[in-house]
Amino acid sequence: MANRVITISREFGSGGRTVGKHTAEKLGIPCYDNELLEKIAEESGLAKEYIAERGEYTPRGGWLATAFADRSVNGLSVQDYLWTVQRKLILELAEKESCVIVGRCADYILEGKADLLKVFIHAPMDKRAERIVKLYGETSESPEKRLRDKDKRRAAYYQFYTDTEWGKSQHYHISLDSDAIGIDRCVDIIAGLY
Amino acid sequence: MANRVITISREFGSGGRTVGKHTAEKLGIPCYDNELLEKIAEESGLAKEYIAERGEYTPRGGWLATAFADRSVNGLSVQDYLWTVQRKLILELAEKESCVIVGRCADYILEGKADLLKVFIHAPMDKRAERIVKLYGETSESPEKRLRDKDKRRAAYYQFYTDTEWGKSQHYHISLDSDAIGIDRCVDIIAGLY
Repeated sequence: MANRVITISREFGSGGRTVGKHTAEKLGIPCYDNELLEKIAEESGLAKEYIAERGEYTPRGGWLATAFADRSVNGLSVQDYLWTVQRKLILELAEKESCVIVGRCADYILEGKADLLKVFIHAPMDKRAERIVKLYGETSESPEKRLRDKDKRRAAYYQFYTDTEWGKSQHYHISLDSDAIGIDRCVDIIAGLY
Repeated sequence: MANRVITISREFGSGGRTVGKHTAEKLGIPCYDNELLEKIAEESGLAKEYIAERGEYTPRGGWLATAFADRSVNGLSVQDYLWTVQRKLILELAEKESCVIVGRCADYILEGKADLLKVFIHAPMDKRAERIVKLYGETSESPEKRLRDKDKRRAAYYQFYTDTEWGKSQHYHISLDSDAIGIDRCVDIIAGLY
C-alpha cells in the first residue's frame, strides 16, 4: 500500500505553511517544508536561500532569470537541475513514509505515485497583505504588490513545470479559504479527511 | 444580522445538487434548486425547461444564442431579462431566510448581501461521465462530449454575467472533489462550517 501524502499548495501569505505544519503535528507525521529546502540544498550543493528564491522563477521568467540562464549544471539550466533534484527527493520522501509536503509542485510530482490528498490554501488579498506585514514587516514595496508578484511567479513556475493551471480548484481534492474558515478549522478538516 | 446562505456552484455530473439537498436537510433549512427554477418560471412567464436550458447560454454564445438574440422582453434580450428576474428572486430568498441555493450565480449575486458560505463541487471527468450515464442514460453523444459542452457553457455564462472565472478556487470559501471525498463527507464538512 502506498504511503499517504498530504500536499499543500498555497498562496503566499495565506497561512498554508502553518496549516501544513499543524496538520502534520495533529496526525503525528512529518511535515516537509523548510526541511525539504535543506535536503534540496544538501543534495544540489546550492545555497538554501538561492533555492528558496529560485524555485519561483520560470526558466523564461524576466530579466533576472535571463541573467542566470547561461549558468548550467551538468548541461541543465540551474532551474531544470533544481527541478530534477527536487523531484527525486520528493519521490524518495513519499516512498519512505506518510507525510505532509508544502509547495514545490509535490501534488504534480506524486500524482499516481502515492495515496494523495491534494490541498490548496488561499485567502483574500487584503487579509494576506495584513498577514505578510505582520510576519515579515514593511518594505518599500506595498504588500499588495509583493503578493501579486509572488502569485504571478508561483503560477508561472507551476504552469511551466506541470503544464497545469495553479489554483484551479479542479486540480485539488480540497481548496480552502483560510481567512473565512480559519486556520484551526482548516487543520481539523484536512486531518479529518486523512 | 443577515441570513446565512450556502451557495453551491458545481460541475455538471459532480453531484453538487445532491450535496446541496442533503446539506439543507441536515441543517433543517430549505434548498433552492428546482424550486428556484419554478419561481423564475412563474415570475418571468417563461417555461421552466426553457429557463433550465437558457440559463447556460451567454448572450453571444454560438448560433443558437444568436438565433434567439432578436427576441426581447421589455427591451432586454431574453437572457438579460432572465438574469434580472433570477437576480431579484435570489435577493428576495436571501432576505427572507437562511437557505442553500444551487447554481444560478447566487454566489456573485449575494456577495456582501448575505452571510455567505460559497462552495464549489467538482469531480474528475471520468467519474462525472459514469454518473451522468447512470442518472440520465446514454445519448448519441459521448458523456465526455456532453460534459465538456456543459462545462464550457457554464463557464461562459458565469464569466459573462459576473466577470469572474468559474471554478477558480480563490473565488469560493471551499472547493471539494466529491469523488475523492465522497458526497456524505462533503455534506458533513459543509454543514459543519455553517
